[in-house]
Amino acid sequence: MKLVTFEVNNEQKFGIYTEEGIVDLSAKTGLKDIKSALEENKFESLSTYANDAVDYKMDEVKLLPVVTNPSKIFCAGVNYDEHRLETKRDHTQHPTIFFRVPRSQVAHNAPMIIPHESERFDFEGEIAIVINKEGRRISQEDAYDYIAGYSCYNDGSVRDYQLHTSQWGPGKNFEHTGAFGPWLVTADEFEPGEVLTLETRLNGEVMQKADTSLLLFSIPELIEYVSSFITLEPGDVIVTGTPGGVGAKRQPPVFMKDGDIVEVEVSKIGILTNPIKSEKLMQSEQVTDGAVEVTNS
Amino acid sequence: MKLVTFEVNNEQKFGIYTEEGIVDLSAKTGLKDIKSALEENKFESLSTYANDAVDYKMDEVKLLPVVTNPSKIFCAGVNYDEHRLETKRDHTQHPTIFFRVPRSQVAHNAPMIIPHESERFDFEGEIAIVINKEGRRISQEDAYDYIAGYSCYNDGSVRDYQLHTSQWGPGKNFEHTGAFGPWLVTADEFEPGEVLTLETRLNGEVMQKADTSLLLFSIPELIEYVSSFITLEPGDVIVTGTPGGVGAKRQPPVFMKDGDIVEVEVSKIGILTNPIKSEKLMQSEQVTDGAVEVTNS
Repeated sequence: MKLVTFEVNNEQKFGIYTEEGIVDLSAKTGLKDIKSALEENKFESLSTYANDAVDYKMDEVKLLPVVTNPSKIFCAGVNYDEHRLETKRDHTQHPTIFFRVPRSQVAHNAPMIIPHESERFDFEGEIAIVINKEGRRISQEDAYDYIAGYSCYNDGSVRDYQLHTSQWGPGKNFEHTGAFGPWLVTADEFEPGEVLTLETRLNGEVMQKADTSLLLFSIPELIEYVSSFITLEPGDVIVTGTPGGVGAKRQPPVFMKDGDIVEVEVSKIGILTNPIKSEKLMQSEQVTDGAVEVTNS
Repeated sequence: MKLVTFEVNNEQKFGIYTEEGIVDLSAKTGLKDIKSALEENKFESLSTYANDAVDYKMDEVKLLPVVTNPSKIFCAGVNYDEHRLETKRDHTQHPTIFFRVPRSQVAHNAPMIIPHESERFDFEGEIAIVINKEGRRISQEDAYDYIAGYSCYNDGSVRDYQLHTSQWGPGKNFEHTGAFGPWLVTADEFEPGEVLTLETRLNGEVMQKADTSLLLFSIPELIEYVSSFITLEPGDVIVTGTPGGVGAKRQPPVFMKDGDIVEVEVSKIGILTNPIKSEKLMQSEQVTDGAVEVTNS
């Protein structure tokens, strides 16, 4: 089942995505979003509505980030060896974890914004997981029980800000840079440990390609580690890391330009697509968090 | 005016702290917390109730972190030269910024917890500011207009986790480690740029002592920098950095032990006090986020 978060008539809703359109789960359940459905233990019963008639065509809605309001967004850095090597970083015994704030996120088809402050805006295709229930000190054995589903993420990074100091947070938290979508594919569609492939394309050209068998720290290891220091909560997001091939480490470096199209494709999930816009070139200050149109993938 | 966030009869409220007790602002305004008062532009009118009769004695309530639900908690690292030197870090042209998550916070008088995972739990006394309104790309000249008030913060740090990798987030986000309180002193009680003194004491012994004239990046510079990448919102917190004298860099190192009392005192604000508890030694798994009793400061 594919769950989407969207806006229609200035109201935020969530629903089931199908090829015909969206089944409005907010109307059917009274719940406002995916996080609420998880918190109120109603997530599994959402499949009851999977065969209902659709309420909206895709062109009637604006998609939003899959989870707009997570309490925490953990990002794993340097979690594929090819990327570790290109960034000349040492092996570590523990995952490298930094944080994103929800305000930095954008939806599928919404522009990712090159800010006034920098021309060094880079893609990072990743696989994101969403946590389904509260847990602390979760063992690797139990980790898959805590996954509500999987999605695509583009951890858009402003490289000069990322390297202003030792801490990467500023370069990872520019407004309109963390693309999250198009939807959440629920965990029941995956075997625990099933290998997922990940590919990032810039204007159709493959820039990054890997699969989850190549993760330095597996999804259960990431869940075990982050839950060792803080309680995971429903709706929390773990972004699992980017493969080699980022723009900044190419010769010559490739940074995203106004008019580019960046895609992150994950097997069994789909394609997260975002146009790139330069804030300097934008006619108006108005930047939308949502999509103007949604293409199937 | 001193604003407190507290719990009474399992309900979260906020109010005005006076020596006699607390004026219940939630009852008088219908607002649930400091963040809501800021968001709904009701913050300045709260002083209307400053001379009202108190509704609760301090021993009837449990204090909570000053802002329990900030959208963002920015922490400045290495922001006093004495601490930069003891940690052998280079000067940087920009502030070092990392993030805390709200879940890691505790209130005045609530225990800060040494986790099972580590014995290397250290204090970091700091001054926190709370943002009053939305803003992006705020100039230093305008920065003081964005401050709702000031408080004390203890950025409790699990040093081995902090140094697992290059990114400090895990060591800065253990549950029950970020102490924030006892109250917010509203900005109208301060001159813009007024020098505040900061002192951290462990069991009465002075461990850190500095004042805001020694900040490497001033409060306006921090506001300018963080708002260059993300929009500041009402209730956001900026924790401005810790002076020299942290436990980990002493010879021999000093880490906090079960039964210790740590205090962070800031001039014109007061004293944030927290007992230290070791999770390993705790009889029960039950850890309170609030206070058992509150002493004046």
